[in-house]
Order: sequence, then structure tokens, then C-alpha cells
Amino acid sequence: MKPIVAINYKAYPTSFGKAALDIAKQAESVAKELGFQVEIIVIPPFTELRTLAQAVEIPVFAQHADAVKLGAATGHIPLEIIKDTGAAGVMLNHSENRIRIDQIDYVVKKAKELGVRTLVCANTPEVSAAVAALEPEMVAVEPPELIGTGIPVSKAKPEIITGTVERVRKVSKDVVILTGAGITKGEDVEAAIKLGTLGVLVASAVMKAKNPREVILDMAQAALKALDQK
Amino acid sequence: MKPIVAINYKAYPTSFGKAALDIAKQAESVAKELGFQVEIIVIPPFTELRTLAQAVEIPVFAQHADAVKLGAATGHIPLEIIKDTGAAGVMLNHSENRIRIDQIDYVVKKAKELGVRTLVCANTPEVSAAVAALEPEMVAVEPPELIGTGIPVSKAKPEIITGTVERVRKVSKDVVILTGAGITKGEDVEAAIKLGTLGVLVASAVMKAKNPREVILDMAQAALKALDQK
Amino acid sequence: MKPIVAINYKAYPTSFGKAALDIAKQAESVAKELGFQVEIIVIPPFTELRTLAQAVEIPVFAQHADAVKLGAATGHIPLEIIKDTGAAGVMLNHSENRIRIDQIDYVVKKAKELGVRTLVCANTPEVSAAVAALEPEMVAVEPPELIGTGIPVSKAKPEIITGTVERVRKVSKDVVILTGAGITKGEDVEAAIKLGTLGVLVASAVMKAKNPREVILDMAQAALKALDQK
Amino acid sequence: MKPIVAINYKAYPTSFGKAALDIAKQAESVAKELGFQVEIIVIPPFTELRTLAQAVEIPVFAQHADAVKLGAATGHIPLEIIKDTGAAGVMLNHSENRIRIDQIDYVVKKAKELGVRTLVCANTPEVSAAVAALEPEMVAVEPPELIGTGIPVSKAKPEIITGTVERVRKVSKDVVILTGAGITKGEDVEAAIKLGTLGVLVASAVMKAKNPREVILDMAQAALKALDQK
Repeated sequence: MKPIVAINYKAYPTSFGKAALDIAKQAESVAKELGFQVEIIVIPPFTELRTLAQAVEIPVFAQHADAVKLGAATGHIPLEIIKDTGAAGVMLNHSENRIRIDQIDYVVKKAKELGVRTLVCANTPEVSAAVAALEPEMVAVEPPELIGTGIPVSKAKPEIITGTVERVRKVSKDVVILTGAGITKGEDVEAAIKLGTLGVLVASAVMKAKNPREVILDMAQAALKALDQK
Repeated sequence: MKPIVAINYKAYPTSFGKAALDIAKQAESVAKELGFQVEIIVIPPFTELRTLAQAVEIPVFAQHADAVKLGAATGHIPLEIIKDTGAAGVMLNHSENRIRIDQIDYVVKKAKELGVRTLVCANTPEVSAAVAALEPEMVAVEPPELIGTGIPVSKAKPEIITGTVERVRKVSKDVVILTGAGITKGEDVEAAIKLGTLGVLVASAVMKAKNPREVILDMAQAALKALDQK
Repeated sequence: MKPIVAINYKAYPTSFGKAALDIAKQAESVAKELGFQVEIIVIPPFTELRTLAQAVEIPVFAQHADAVKLGAATGHIPLEIIKDTGAAGVMLNHSENRIRIDQIDYVVKKAKELGVRTLVCANTPEVSAAVAALEPEMVAVEPPELIGTGIPVSKAKPEIITGTVERVRKVSKDVVILTGAGITKGEDVEAAIKLGTLGVLVASAVMKAKNPREVILDMAQAALKALDQK
Repeated sequence: MKPIVAINYKAYPTSFGKAALDIAKQAESVAKELGFQVEIIVIPPFTELRTLAQAVEIPVFAQHADAVKLGAATGHIPLEIIKDTGAAGVMLNHSENRIRIDQIDYVVKKAKELGVRTLVCANTPEVSAAVAALEPEMVAVEPPELIGTGIPVSKAKPEIITGTVERVRKVSKDVVILTGAGITKGEDVEAAIKLGTLGVLVASAVMKAKNPREVILDMAQAALKALDQK
């Protein structure tokens, strides 16, 4: 299995327009440099999905999808529209955009029908196991108190990662587990993989970097190295 | 294990004031008549918790609790207040009051600390398994499209009940499973128990009944009979 | 017109059970001492409404009401239930429990039908004018950044109060205007009334006081004095 | 003042991709045919904003904006991003996407700073007046029970339109008032303008039409004619 570096663009000044495209191109260039042995995923705002999905070969995910059907759903984005943009997947239930468990169930089921990939966020080992029971492709555990702090969960609370792996594996053998919150460099990615997950979900470390390509490359190389050593 | 008949009062004209108390007394009288071999739970609105908890010996549950701490939480009801009323437990995530999975996790964990019982609702087998991963005492599966219809899920969609039992048991051996939606009489309770659950969550069938005691007795006797035959 | 001191109980350790009742009794005792020339309103959690409404002669308000009809509304509290508890009114849209403008419209209209009094919170002069357009009995302006700080809005941002009075009066001549956020003593109440409002909405200053009666008396006397001087 | 036909794309099968662009082009072609004497606004999903804003000369509005700052706001779309797409404005508080009054206040204020136009929906005359107090550019009154029915509010409930005009004008002289819900043809637009509003907010009548251009032209011509006769 390939290690994963998923980049949540959030809604920073670099998350849209030319800057958003540049970061996606840099992420793609790192993926190419490493022979696509690391899966690098970019997760921009809705408004950038079409542009990025057409511009890069690496997977583009939406930051959210609404649990609604096509139809009278003003201001909401059903999964069919996300798929139409060329996006490969959707992230759900990020700590800045929590949704209900029945809504996650709805979108994950529809994603399977439409062939859209899914990454569901969770805040604790227990919630990680809960969302794993819905059988998305990926679950990312992120203790909200560490998001954006630069304090990696792998150092501050390694037991959350190992606890998540343990609990999730009781519920699902297949779901891919990612580590999020406070990840800023290759070393953190390495730790996350050594603790039993397959990669990371990052945001500010890339989006606010002077040189995003350097940060992505550092993380992707560390991911590759850590997985090789296992 | 005792079979369970949990009565969700909702917010009907009979759900508060004297009518609410009368129904609780009738439920208690049925429980006594059956030697407390069936656990009958009443679940009134917040405003009735103190009165009912003081008036009857059967367990009183709140219809919801907010995932907040004691403090600056205007309009919200933390679990500490629910416990203080004398209520024995809390229902969470009813289809008319869905909450987020991280909120269910928060309240279930706090309930364990405070010694408060928990009953978490779910709409599908997958969501039932998800909430079971949080290890509440009880999970009630209720397909929302059947709630209030009088069409029992045990007849209309028995595969939802059997599917729930199967999925939940993979995640948790201990969590008690209840059947909800469209349950109106003893026969439906019997079917629910034969399909592998330990009881039912009912509402309108009792709350809108001319003779609530009769309906509760019918259900409780059927539950007892069905469990004996297993 | 009588000056108003409205006490939002929030969900503090003193907001329920015996402590809640004691504070209501103390508020009532102050109201009596001042010959009911100051209107003192207590606003406890849903669970305490019946007990307090039966125990004291001063008005008891709910902290919120849901914009739903009597019926299938699990976990929600329609206004009919609030009225049945003996409560005289309802507070809506507190900063810790914001609701939608159409929901405020729904509850305010129903409150008029049922003879229930209404106090709607707002965060800015513009939002105060907006809710005043719905013609509730009272509007309380509370800049959220000052709530619970002990820094009175009347000192920190007097222009918010005067701006609110000006904007609200363009929309409605009748709605009563209250000042909230950071009010801790008589002096703050006096300032609020001198700036053109008819009283205050307070919370922690009373609920966390060693001697709540003393704080309430200080505020009520200051309100009376300030109004006399106008 | 120019009459207005605002087309809410919602999330129909025609609301994204090539169909979305085609309808925008047809709307633009009608606007040109009428010498831009009628303002035709298209309101597509977030994902289509960039494409449409670059493709047509008529104003493109977003269906919603979140009351958040640029930054850590996963899955949310701040107004700065909407502006960056080239969109001219934003619609807020549609019945399928109601938001809180403090959120409307936040976005309307920011829109003024950024030079973004605003159209705020409301369900009743009272709520229309309330949102008018926030001084957006436009208010659209739409009784939700008529949305999508094809029964024009101008026929079914003309008093809602005249009541809205009356109440809004007490609060604001400048805000433009639009009529929505059940508008399907030129005749309905004419009635809406004769009742005192400056145009319409439509959706399914255009988005589900076999020939959207024909419907838009019919409405725009009727708007022009009705305004001329006043």
C-alpha cells in the first residue's frame, strides 16, 4: 500500500485562485518525483475543484459534501456535483465542519455508488471506530485541540493514534487510517506511520509555508522511508 | 436479561403536565403488575423530568442532553443537570433530534462517569454499528420513514433489524439492541424480540392511546412471552 | 415603566436544584423589598421551570423555545409546554444559543397568541433593529466578546448601546431595550439606563456571587435610582 | 431602476457543468437582446462560480457565503473566495439554507467592505423587514410553502407581497424588494411588479424548462412592460 499525504487547503489566503493552483502543481511535482509511490491528495474549497481537477493528475478531494439529493438544495453541494467537477473524492466531518453520523452514512453510501473516494475525520479513537463502521476508504484521527498548533499528535498524544488503530481494527480490517493535527514536518509523518497509520492529513504546515513544495517533499519522503522500514 | 419497553413521550399534548404524570404512573403500574420483570422506561420532555423522577419507581430518561459542560450554556442541558433531576438515563440522537457523532461520544463518556444510563438512536444498520462502537448501554434502530406510521419495522423491513443485530454484534457484544418505528401493539414487540433485539422504543402508540395502560401492558406482556420462548 | 433586571441562569452549578430555587427566592425578596417597582425576571434551565414558577411571584422565563408545534418533536420544547409550566415568558437567541430569524419570527408570533412574554437577544445595533422588526416585548443587546468578562458594555462600548437605541427606535417605538454583557454591579446598571435602555440582562455576576441577594439588590436599587433621575 | 430577474440554479441536474453554462449564456443573450434594460442574475452552485463568472457579462451570485474569516474554515466559503471567483454578489438565507440573523449581519457588512452585492431571502413580511434592517441591496420574500409549486405567490397570497413592501419600507427606503415562490411565467412577473416589487427570484421554472431562454425572455419582457406601466 502507498503512504498518503493529504493536504487540506482549508480557506486560507493561499487556498484559492492562483496560489491554490500553484500548491496543487507543486504537490503533483513531488508525486511525480517520487514515481507516484506516495499518494498526495489536495483538498481545496468547492470553488477551486474544477480548476484543480483539470490541472493536476494527483487526486483532488472536496472538503465536504452535503447529504442531499440533486434538486432543490440551494447552497448545498451534493456528491453528484463534486463528481462532475472531476474530483476523485470527498473529505467529511472535519473538526471545522462536523456533520451527523447519519449524514456521513448517507454520503459514504452514495460515494460507493458513484465511485467517489471517501476520507472521514474523527476526533477520538472511539469516534474513529464509529466512522470506520460505515466503511469509508479512509479515516483520519485528529484531536481538535492540536489542530493548527504545530504540536504533532504523534508526540503529544501517541496513545490517541495507537488507540485509534486498535479500536478501528476491531471494527474494520480494510479502512485506511491517517493521522492529523499538528503535523508540520517529515519527522511527524514518520512517527505517525510508525505508530501504525498509513499517512497524514495536514493543512497549515503546507498552506502557510514559504515553500510548500519543500514541505510536501519532506513529508512524502519521510512517509516513504517510514513505510519501507516497517 | 429483562425485556425493555421504552416510551418516548415526544412533545404531544399528553407529554407534559398531568397527562404526562398519569402515563408514567400507568407505566409504573404495569411494571409492578409484571413483578418488574419487564423494564419500562419513560422519556418525557426536560420540563417534566423532576416531577416524573420523583413520582415513579421506574426509570425516567431525558429525551436529549447537550454536549456541553456546566457553565455558560444558555438554553442547553448538560448531563449533570439531568442527573440532578433524578433521571436515570438519557436518550440521544433521536431522528427528530440528530446530533453529531463527536457529541454522542462526549455525552456517552460523561454518562459513564456520572452513572447515567444511555440509549442512542440510529436510522440504519450501519449507523447502529457506528454508535455501538461508542459503547452506550442501548442502541435503538428506527428507520425514520416508518416512525409514526403504525407500520411496524418488524413487518415492513425485518432485514433492518436482523442486519442491525448482525452489524452491531461485530462491534460490541454487550450493547442492548432495541427496535423502534411503527410499533403499536404486543404483536410488534414480539416480532422485534424474535428478530433478535431485547425490546422496543415506542411513542405515539402509547402517547395518543385512549387507554395507555392497556397498550403498555399488551406490549410488556408480549415482550415477556417472546423472551421466554427464546 | 418599570426598570428591568433579568437574570439568565445559564447552566452553572448554581443554576439547578436547591441553589436555583434559593436565588429565585432571593430575587423575589428584593422585588418585594422594593415594592415591585423593579421587575426582576429569573431565567432558569428548562428542568427548573415548573419548580421556580410555582415557588415565586416574580416572572420566570425559559432560556429558549423551539420553533416547533406540539407533536413529534423529541428533545425540543415548544412554547405550549413552557406556558404549561407556569413560566411567564421566553428568552430567545442568546449568544450561546443563536437561532434563525424565521424561528424567532415563529416563536414571537406564537408567544403573542399564547400570551407569553418575549425577550430576544442580539449582538449588534443592526441585529437589534432586525429583531425589533419582529416586535417582541424586549430586545437585549449583548456584544458577545464582553459576555462573562466583567467589563461592562456601558463602559467599554457605550456606542453600541446608544447605536442600538437609535436604530431600534427607527423600527419600533414600543419594544423595550435591555443592555447585557459584562454587567456586574449597580453602577453598570445605572450607566445602561442613562444610555437609554430600560434595564439589564445579567448572568455570572449573580449566579457566581457569594451573596446573590446583595448583587441583585444593588442592581435593582441602581436601576430605580437611574430611572428616577431621567 | 431596472427590473430584476434573478435565477437561483439550486442543485438540479442542469445546475452544473455544460447545462449550467448554457443557461447562463441564454440568460446573457436575453439581457443583451433587451439592451441590458432588465438585470438578469444567475446564481449557480459554488463549484460553477469561476466558470460562469468568466463566461458571461451578466452578474453571477453565489447561493450562500459562510460567516467566517479567511483561515481555518474547512468546507466553508468565506466571501473573499466568492469575490475572487469573479462573482458579483451573494444570496443569503434561502429557505433551503437558512442562516442566523447575526450571520446575515456579518456577511452583509463584509460584503459592503468588499464591494459584493447582496440578496437576502425571507419567508414572511416580518422577516423581510427584519433583514431589511441590515440594509442589504435586495430582499426577496418567498413563502416557503409555495416554492416549487408553480402557484405564484402574486396570485395565491398577494397580501404577503404588499405586506412585505409596506413593512420593509418602514425600515428602509433603499432596499430593493423581489418576489419569489411559484413564479413560472411573464404574467407572474408582471403581477409581482404591479404589487410593488422590482422583480423576481425564480428557480425551477427556468432550470427545468425545455427552453430556458424562452422562459427567461418571457419573464424579462413582462418585467420591462410592467415597470413601464407604473
